[in-house]
Amino acid sequence: MNYVRMTFDQIVSLATDCLLANGANEGNATAVARSIAKAERDGSSSHGFFRLPGYIASLKSGKVSGNAKPTVSTLTSSVVRIDGDNGYAPLALEIGIPELIAIASKTGVGIGALVNVYHFAALWPEVETIADSGMVGFACTAFKPSVAPAGASRPLFGTNPMAFAWPRKNNRPMVFDMATAAMARGEIQIAARDGHTLPQGVGLDASGNPTTDPKAILDGVMLPFGGYKGANLAIMIELLVAAIIGENFSFEAEEKDNNDGGPPRGGEFLLAIDPRHLGADDSSTHAEAFFERYLSLSGTRMPGDRRYANRDIASDGINVSQTTIEKINNLM
Amino acid sequence: MNYVRMTFDQIVSLATDCLLANGANEGNATAVARSIAKAERDGSSSHGFFRLPGYIASLKSGKVSGNAKPTVSTLTSSVVRIDGDNGYAPLALEIGIPELIAIASKTGVGIGALVNVYHFAALWPEVETIADSGMVGFACTAFKPSVAPAGASRPLFGTNPMAFAWPRKNNRPMVFDMATAAMARGEIQIAARDGHTLPQGVGLDASGNPTTDPKAILDGVMLPFGGYKGANLAIMIELLVAAIIGENFSFEAEEKDNNDGGPPRGGEFLLAIDPRHLGADDSSTHAEAFFERYLSLSGTRMPGDRRYANRDIASDGINVSQTTIEKINNLM
Repeated sequence: MNYVRMTFDQIVSLATDCLLANGANEGNATAVARSIAKAERDGSSSHGFFRLPGYIASLKSGKVSGNAKPTVSTLTSSVVRIDGDNGYAPLALEIGIPELIAIASKTGVGIGALVNVYHFAALWPEVETIADSGMVGFACTAFKPSVAPAGASRPLFGTNPMAFAWPRKNNRPMVFDMATAAMARGEIQIAARDGHTLPQGVGLDASGNPTTDPKAILDGVMLPFGGYKGANLAIMIELLVAAIIGENFSFEAEEKDNNDGGPPRGGEFLLAIDPRHLGADDSSTHAEAFFERYLSLSGTRMPGDRRYANRDIASDGINVSQTTIEKINNLM
Repeated sequence: MNYVRMTFDQIVSLATDCLLANGANEGNATAVARSIAKAERDGSSSHGFFRLPGYIASLKSGKVSGNAKPTVSTLTSSVVRIDGDNGYAPLALEIGIPELIAIASKTGVGIGALVNVYHFAALWPEVETIADSGMVGFACTAFKPSVAPAGASRPLFGTNPMAFAWPRKNNRPMVFDMATAAMARGEIQIAARDGHTLPQGVGLDASGNPTTDPKAILDGVMLPFGGYKGANLAIMIELLVAAIIGENFSFEAEEKDNNDGGPPRGGEFLLAIDPRHLGADDSSTHAEAFFERYLSLSGTRMPGDRRYANRDIASDGINVSQTTIEKINNLM
């Protein structure tokens, strides 16, 4: 495969141009484009340019507004509600997260309820942003059903990822972002596209039988990681991103979706905690003692370190396949 | 084995008497005894009378105060700090949780930072109490290291359980309480006591090799559930119960403990969310639509339903083995 070496800004420009050409305004286009560029930069190709055709499809179908004007309401001293105005999540997050950080810095904890929005990106950018402000960040979201509850063979949960970030002293935050599915849907899609097989335990085929074929799993059902415990987390996430903030459960998102190839409408639950308000003397130094002990054990690695390693390499340029660039040019 | 049929109140009385005889005052003794009785009632024998010798051992060694006077400080409009005064957790929780609920009912979210305390019980009682007040409850805690990080063969994490409760309309809350270890330490101890073997994946022996022998795992190391994803949760919990609230990490708890057979000193992180403040129209009815869909899938069951089924049966009396009662009588 032929690759083109691009800078972060060139990726943002290319994705922005494509979104502008399909009806998004500057603010929405650049916010989505930055989320794509961050994913490409950090080696998360399943959330990079790979998502752009879906974004464009939903602009074309009219499902998602490319001119959304997200707004933030302060519901209590510790709760903000971020209304995406029927647009994509990235602009709503760019506007909402500073408000979330502001309330958490005053009361020690803030909830951000992101609604009326279409989420098609990774979660680590939002929790990393929260941690860059010295706070602990947590986020979760749902999608359409593709994961079966423990014991079942029909889907009910989305892949329902959750992300967590801890702000480190003189270091980049510790961040994890993981699907409660045994594998992220994007990764299975990539495996299907590239003709790879998957480990046992990732999913069942359309008849409810175990399979290692990614295409059969995409036609069938994925499984939660770790059996009923992962399923418990998936239930918790459904309740946090739907019932508690008044947005769609995964099963409702699917029923209401027009299946244009883009994301369904659904909420995101965000939590920011300011360690300076919880009574500890020095959370940051204390945490470093834990990380030091952790890394002293043979075989460990810091969650998120591969993303940072890719990011370091990306400062010299990011490889994007010629095929991908042609696909994007064809969307304009 | 011979069993004696006891009521809930008789279990509370027996455990209270035993704790009083070993130096605890009335308030602390009954709070611990109620936590033991709730576990026996709900079929969670690993957190019932099974724990009493450990409680007594730490009263005898002087590590834990049986006359603790827990206090609650309001740090912000959304954060309370519950100081256990060097006592067991149950009394501190009985005093602190109403304050946590009070702040969450005003601002929509509250954090309870429980410190200076010894936790030796299950977590579901506290989150169920929060849900009984119409709020969503979350809790987590740590212990001494017994679980290896992903990729490692030496322990660093406690079994680090997390519990979540959702308040249901006209129904008991949905509650899960699960170790981030593949299996709770108490269950492994019970299996060792009863001579059972365990599934693969629960732990490694002292040499770092896989084993199904519960005794070998107790001498070796347990594994997180679901590989690196469960390990990520264990890391998150360590940070929430130690660094962020200023208490012991699992590894610190072990270093400071006198190994008297009781629990080490360590913190608990509690979160209460009031769905009435997050902007949803009717979280409760909306959640029921999800539960209905969930239960319509063949093979599913509600998290926590076995506990409630045991509780229903327990209204006719709870079986306690004659051996257990003799052990308790010998502690007095």
